[in-house]
Amino acid sequence: MPVYTYAVAWTERGTLSLLDQRLLPRETRYVEIASVEALAEAISSLRVRGAPLIGIAAAMGLAGAARSVLERGGSVDPEWLEAAVDKLRRTRPTAVNLSWALSRMRRAFECAWEQGSREAEIADLLRAEAQRIWDEDAAMCEAIGRAGEELVSPGATILTHCNTGFLATGGIGTAFGVIYTAHRAGKGIDVVVTETRPLGQGARLTSFELMRAGIPGKVIVDGAAAALMAAGEIDLVIVGADRIAANGDVANKIGTYALAVLARAHDIPFYVAAPHSSVDLAAGSGGDIPIECRSGAELAEVAGVEVYNPAFDVTPAELVTALVTDRGVVRAPDAARLRALFGRS
Amino acid sequence: MPVYTYAVAWTERGTLSLLDQRLLPRETRYVEIASVEALAEAISSLRVRGAPLIGIAAAMGLAGAARSVLERGGSVDPEWLEAAVDKLRRTRPTAVNLSWALSRMRRAFECAWEQGSREAEIADLLRAEAQRIWDEDAAMCEAIGRAGEELVSPGATILTHCNTGFLATGGIGTAFGVIYTAHRAGKGIDVVVTETRPLGQGARLTSFELMRAGIPGKVIVDGAAAALMAAGEIDLVIVGADRIAANGDVANKIGTYALAVLARAHDIPFYVAAPHSSVDLAAGSGGDIPIECRSGAELAEVAGVEVYNPAFDVTPAELVTALVTDRGVVRAPDAARLRALFGRS
Repeated sequence: MPVYTYAVAWTERGTLSLLDQRLLPRETRYVEIASVEALAEAISSLRVRGAPLIGIAAAMGLAGAARSVLERGGSVDPEWLEAAVDKLRRTRPTAVNLSWALSRMRRAFECAWEQGSREAEIADLLRAEAQRIWDEDAAMCEAIGRAGEELVSPGATILTHCNTGFLATGGIGTAFGVIYTAHRAGKGIDVVVTETRPLGQGARLTSFELMRAGIPGKVIVDGAAAALMAAGEIDLVIVGADRIAANGDVANKIGTYALAVLARAHDIPFYVAAPHSSVDLAAGSGGDIPIECRSGAELAEVAGVEVYNPAFDVTPAELVTALVTDRGVVRAPDAARLRALFGRS
Repeated sequence: MPVYTYAVAWTERGTLSLLDQRLLPRETRYVEIASVEALAEAISSLRVRGAPLIGIAAAMGLAGAARSVLERGGSVDPEWLEAAVDKLRRTRPTAVNLSWALSRMRRAFECAWEQGSREAEIADLLRAEAQRIWDEDAAMCEAIGRAGEELVSPGATILTHCNTGFLATGGIGTAFGVIYTAHRAGKGIDVVVTETRPLGQGARLTSFELMRAGIPGKVIVDGAAAALMAAGEIDLVIVGADRIAANGDVANKIGTYALAVLARAHDIPFYVAAPHSSVDLAAGSGGDIPIECRSGAELAEVAGVEVYNPAFDVTPAELVTALVTDRGVVRAPDAARLRALFGRS
């Protein structure tokens, strides 16, 4: 069994092939995404998820959609691109990587358009830019893993939340990249992963990744993390990020903030691992990050009572022991330290 | 629609009729429990749950099983009773109410047996004792509600966990009894209930009770409680208890301890409501309370990875702002205050 299941790939005709993560772990099915509409649906409905991977999939899907439009005799012009970018940007408001990747794709398009490239050449350039975004993310994951490994003591038990591995990125992952790197280095680690309600990314996806990578681990309900911390069974917590504000506040999967408060109360280090594409210096603090609220239908079996279902929460920087990034470890993150490292990203 | 759905009742032939809570809220089906084996299965498999209700159901079921044994020409003697009590006591180790109710039933049996009562009379006496346990619990719920109402300010938003209402007790409930009493008093309260994974007692049962009682409320995933606290949207937390140790430590549904730590971090009062039958002075502290671990199968969709599924956790007394009991409110509970109130229970 290969350690990796690629979450994205190119089809032979140059469109996006996407592993439908809603079906995991029961079924491993790839779907071809050949239009902006299908791409927007796949992102909104979480067939593809994970902040870095959303950016990669959006870029690849956009390049593939451009190819498809040309095949059908349509036009890939600035109007088409703007409409596509607008539609895609609105699918998931919290993760900044989507917006970041779309901006890169737009710049690549504009450069080519202004130089008078033919539309077929533009489609090639879009594919090349999407591939670069993917390749760079894979490299960033490796760098995050290398940087974070020093934080993991031999034999450590690591608590993680949600899914941050190869199903969430273009490579070995962010928080999972650190876990994977420590495991590969023979540190004999053990992982506890929270179920991550309502959609079970921990129980469905991270458990799947742990099994494939041969990393010992167990799943707990979100509510059990505190009891394990109190019992001294957790050595460190590491999670990913959907967006990091200029002051170091972190938006991530709902339940992250609780883990940060609990880690502090039990004197356990709390780390956040993310590529520099997750840092948004335009957001001054967590309060500037839009938090997506999703349908109450994600919580099954509710008997007609209202559901409040925010997909993310904000962890203030002061609860973050360190950020682990592809540019190194930032201990006690604050605005000055982030500006120094990411001011010219 | 009546506000109450009785979770237990007597059948015409004097056996226990039990609302199968595993089917709620989709289906309201009562099952007859006519043997000790069926009763043990119903308790183990959570067809009946909620610390006080488990005690009531065990007492009623035992009385009904005695009647059934006599009908079939069997013998209700000390050997039968001991075997039955032993079997039932082992079904759920954490809640003390089960053990408490069974001890009462055994004392009632022993009194009757020593006085030379005929077996048919003994069965009547067992039924009468079970009915007393039920009636007393209903009265204790009313007393808890009255005692706790003073802690609820008009317009308060109350966070609660798991299910503690008429589906968990013999009356209006413990934590839910306080909520219900405050609502009935016109305080205009609002309730937030956590889903309570893995079995969803909050989403399935408490939401059902809120709807029936006409109390405004909404369901959140367990991981979202912290974000609501940080946003200033929770005024107080109130939960039930499966067992309270002599020093005030509280064993309750997994996730309770996290809520207590989070409430303290956000300066929100954290209350525990329980009848005196939940107090176990023989357990010196939380460490003396056995914590039941249940099957990993309760977390669906896990891909072959180990599951750790403790059903309860322990909240240390110092995180409990006050205990709300049928004997009044105990602020800052500790061993001396508990002994003073419950030493001669």
